[in-house]
Amino acid sequence: MRVYNFSAGPSTLPLNVLEQARDEFLDFAGTGMSVTEISHRDKAFAAVVAEAESLVRELLKVPDDYAVLFVQGGASTQFAAIPLNMMHNKKADYIVTGNFAKKAWQEGKIYGEAVKIGDSSDKTYTYIPDVDTLPYSDDADYVHITSNNTIFGTRYVKFPKCKAPLVADMSSEIFSREVNVADFGVIYAGAQKNLAPAGVTIVIAKRSLIQDPLPICPTMLKWKIQDENGSLYNTPPCFSIYMADLVLRDLKAKGGVKAMNETDEYKAGLLYDFIDNSKLFKNNVVKEFRSIMNVPFVTPSAELDAKFIAEAKSAGLVSLKGHRLVGGMRASIYNAMPVEGVKALIEFMKKFELENK
Amino acid sequence: MRVYNFSAGPSTLPLNVLEQARDEFLDFAGTGMSVTEISHRDKAFAAVVAEAESLVRELLKVPDDYAVLFVQGGASTQFAAIPLNMMHNKKADYIVTGNFAKKAWQEGKIYGEAVKIGDSSDKTYTYIPDVDTLPYSDDADYVHITSNNTIFGTRYVKFPKCKAPLVADMSSEIFSREVNVADFGVIYAGAQKNLAPAGVTIVIAKRSLIQDPLPICPTMLKWKIQDENGSLYNTPPCFSIYMADLVLRDLKAKGGVKAMNETDEYKAGLLYDFIDNSKLFKNNVVKEFRSIMNVPFVTPSAELDAKFIAEAKSAGLVSLKGHRLVGGMRASIYNAMPVEGVKALIEFMKKFELENK
Repeated sequence: MRVYNFSAGPSTLPLNVLEQARDEFLDFAGTGMSVTEISHRDKAFAAVVAEAESLVRELLKVPDDYAVLFVQGGASTQFAAIPLNMMHNKKADYIVTGNFAKKAWQEGKIYGEAVKIGDSSDKTYTYIPDVDTLPYSDDADYVHITSNNTIFGTRYVKFPKCKAPLVADMSSEIFSREVNVADFGVIYAGAQKNLAPAGVTIVIAKRSLIQDPLPICPTMLKWKIQDENGSLYNTPPCFSIYMADLVLRDLKAKGGVKAMNETDEYKAGLLYDFIDNSKLFKNNVVKEFRSIMNVPFVTPSAELDAKFIAEAKSAGLVSLKGHRLVGGMRASIYNAMPVEGVKALIEFMKKFELENK
Repeated sequence: MRVYNFSAGPSTLPLNVLEQARDEFLDFAGTGMSVTEISHRDKAFAAVVAEAESLVRELLKVPDDYAVLFVQGGASTQFAAIPLNMMHNKKADYIVTGNFAKKAWQEGKIYGEAVKIGDSSDKTYTYIPDVDTLPYSDDADYVHITSNNTIFGTRYVKFPKCKAPLVADMSSEIFSREVNVADFGVIYAGAQKNLAPAGVTIVIAKRSLIQDPLPICPTMLKWKIQDENGSLYNTPPCFSIYMADLVLRDLKAKGGVKAMNETDEYKAGLLYDFIDNSKLFKNNVVKEFRSIMNVPFVTPSAELDAKFIAEAKSAGLVSLKGHRLVGGMRASIYNAMPVEGVKALIEFMKKFELENK
């Protein structure tokens, strides 16, 4: 029986996409080979990479002077790639709004002066600092943000307006909200939340900003090299790109990012409304900054949290355990989580609350 | 109809493994989720990583003081990771026996003095230099080799005996021959040839050599960090690791590396024997150094080569085009290429020779 999988990543994928991948797993595009076996230089596979790039451009309305890259190593590798491609003045601003934002900042410090200009750790990362009043550096190479904080369940409502190019880790919310790409220097995202199986990372970068990587930058982390080679400088993570392409096709068929955002807002609204009216469950995030992708919540006790997680699992609602940094529960309700899954979770929470008054 | 796929990588995988992956694609280990969706922290998936590591250790007889890592970015990323983890004296020796060996050497030069102590480009990389007479540096941090040269179809018959740790790129031959891991400081291999779909790279490294990465090393490229986190420092390329695990299980069931080597030697022997007795086809590699994985060959003319490649494709023998650096044809006959595939290729070559005298 298929469960509802609330994992923060890797995470649930559209069932119709999984079925298509299964059905053609031994014979991709009539080639007589699995997509896991075909040469990345084969025309049939090159078409997949080209289509995936084209769909990213179309669905996010990416301007023509931006590169769209498929690379490896996850957002964590990009934490180094960002300074290695961009830190020419050896100075960058970081807004630290969670665990991954902090990791990005710490990695930045390896390569230059990484200035923490904002920090919401004083309230366990339950809010986003006011981006209009932060002390942006005059000579920063870029300003780094994490637009949605997977572990703490927050998101930026508006983005910094700063002189330096804005670099945003959108791993856990890309394709769930419309953004104006031209407002950013770089957007990057690990695919394993809203796009594809783990193994591929998208980088969308303004080409004028990526022409001069630092000399110590590993060749594979040079965005310019990846751009010049159409993400095929070496063997790419073919299967993950193929799956990303199927998910992007599916997203387009479902109406694109705007339509998906409406569904995502609706799903999150159902869950937050229930939690806010519950006497047992609580979400601690400042309402304005609540993520529509990751919804952390708690009961009054760790024992009851554990009981909830175990009983939910038995009911086919899995991976609801919160991150070890915050405890409690977390429901990740990405694009591929059906409305029915959120409703099933709410019904289960209702029942649990009645049984545990 | 399933073709015989002679691609140099990504490349053919065992049919029984592909069938298993397809059959359980929507429900991995009874979890009600696809293996592409499950959290990498889930016990069911952690068991996959643990089993894959354990099988690598068992099948290659890896000593206990070596780390076995699953990382991302392909061998090309390791070209940087090697100096970034090991180049403390800022000096290393490189033996350049082909295109990837050259790329590894060039990447080494970013981080220190990368000394080219051997080079077989004088004869289009058709041989391996005599490893007993090379001018090894006294103060090198390591000696780097490419044990099998995918494009040129050569392999080391014996390995350098040098003071510095030996670092070997075994991407295109790992698991096809028995090696004494203790003779190496580091063995690494992109998986997309003999092990799994593209997206995962194996690193086998003596732990005493990887304790002190250079300060500029990106965290994700620090082997020590990957080792301390059991290859789960960040989200790994889960599907490729899962497939590697299935292939390793299959390799064990088929008798392990020794048995596989016998089959591989047999397959290569059939093909080289035919070529050596042919009046039309020719392999230019010095016999002693011929690869048993990658077999390049040519006819007397580029036109006939093109005709051969096209007609072979129509006959279900695909991806036989040689690399653009050498032209002609190349048959990659990795572990997963059945004996029947090699026999079918030879039969086709016989027929083509008769028709094109």
